[in-house]
Amino acid sequence: MEQTDIDTPPEPLLKPGRGRRRAEDVRHAALTATSTLLFEDGIRGVTFEKVAARAGVSKVTLYKWWSSPGALAFEAYFSALEETLAFPDTGDLRADLTTQLHALVGLFARSGGTIAQIVGAAQSEPELIEALSNQYVRRRRDLAVERLGKALEAGQLRPDADLDAIVDQLWGACYHRLMLPALPEHPVDEAFADALIANLFGGIAPA
Amino acid sequence: MEQTDIDTPPEPLLKPGRGRRRAEDVRHAALTATSTLLFEDGIRGVTFEKVAARAGVSKVTLYKWWSSPGALAFEAYFSALEETLAFPDTGDLRADLTTQLHALVGLFARSGGTIAQIVGAAQSEPELIEALSNQYVRRRRDLAVERLGKALEAGQLRPDADLDAIVDQLWGACYHRLMLPALPEHPVDEAFADALIANLFGGIAPA
Repeated sequence: MEQTDIDTPPEPLLKPGRGRRRAEDVRHAALTATSTLLFEDGIRGVTFEKVAARAGVSKVTLYKWWSSPGALAFEAYFSALEETLAFPDTGDLRADLTTQLHALVGLFARSGGTIAQIVGAAQSEPELIEALSNQYVRRRRDLAVERLGKALEAGQLRPDADLDAIVDQLWGACYHRLMLPALPEHPVDEAFADALIANLFGGIAPA
Repeated sequence: MEQTDIDTPPEPLLKPGRGRRRAEDVRHAALTATSTLLFEDGIRGVTFEKVAARAGVSKVTLYKWWSSPGALAFEAYFSALEETLAFPDTGDLRADLTTQLHALVGLFARSGGTIAQIVGAAQSEPELIEALSNQYVRRRRDLAVERLGKALEAGQLRPDADLDAIVDQLWGACYHRLMLPALPEHPVDEAFADALIANLFGGIAPA
């Protein structure tokens, strides 16, 4: 894909019927249209029909690239998510985790329903679970554990701390409240994020 | 329902067409048939048609009690689950949590796929999420926090530990790995349960 942009006219991506578009542009248009539908109507709003109409892409093309509307919704969502959840590294682990978890609960407040629907829909479709694992879970875990590993080397973590389990006890705890909710008593908010960090850093055993 | 059993003949519950059965019996037959279907074929195997046939119950009756096959699957599943996950109280909190989490990961190993499907299906149906919260999440949280509260009084927890967040950092962490999996690297097994407890009790901050 080292192709230059020289032969691509500066016309709007989403206008159909102006000759062949580059595969990357079509793909991008499809993903953008899908994100919009997702946030307007939830996962049930994403059909190949509607995405095709909105993106000016043929349904055949969509079928070629995505095995189901769920798979398409999935990729659209998680490629959008990736940017929002960058992992900061200021050198102070606890401060960085606080920033990161506050961003996560903020995201859940805005679009937690859609995230829950996407993760939920994946549970009955082996292909979607595979996509969830590969396109999202492994990448996020690797990023987090890499950051935690640096902190360990810098002496900011106990040498025997289980770094992988930390991921489940911070991010995972937020997903738990999102998907197995007991609202309004148990919200997913910044106070909750702070409680997770305080419990895990200080430990719950008596001093 | 303080009715005696005197007028109930000792005939098999599941035989249809032998006159009126008590509501409780019919309900029980429907739930039992549903559990069987769930474990044989997953959540998609649960239809009112199949449950009616297997339980010897009319579809009209099923529609009267449950708003959807999902709602029925839900109740069948969580009433079965309740027995498996009793919360021990030996007076030693850490030992009891270990027992409880080992039971949970054992359950996930046997039927984690079905649990994930049920929780997943609930995400797109407001009625099911409500049922999940009321019939399962709140009850389990209450039981856990009650046990944790006793431990706190007994001096087995730091006075400033957030008991509600502990639930998310132990049970919730297991649900996270179940529903956002990265297998085989990150299994939900007893070693993972032990790592959760070690991280949370000892804390991850350097000593």
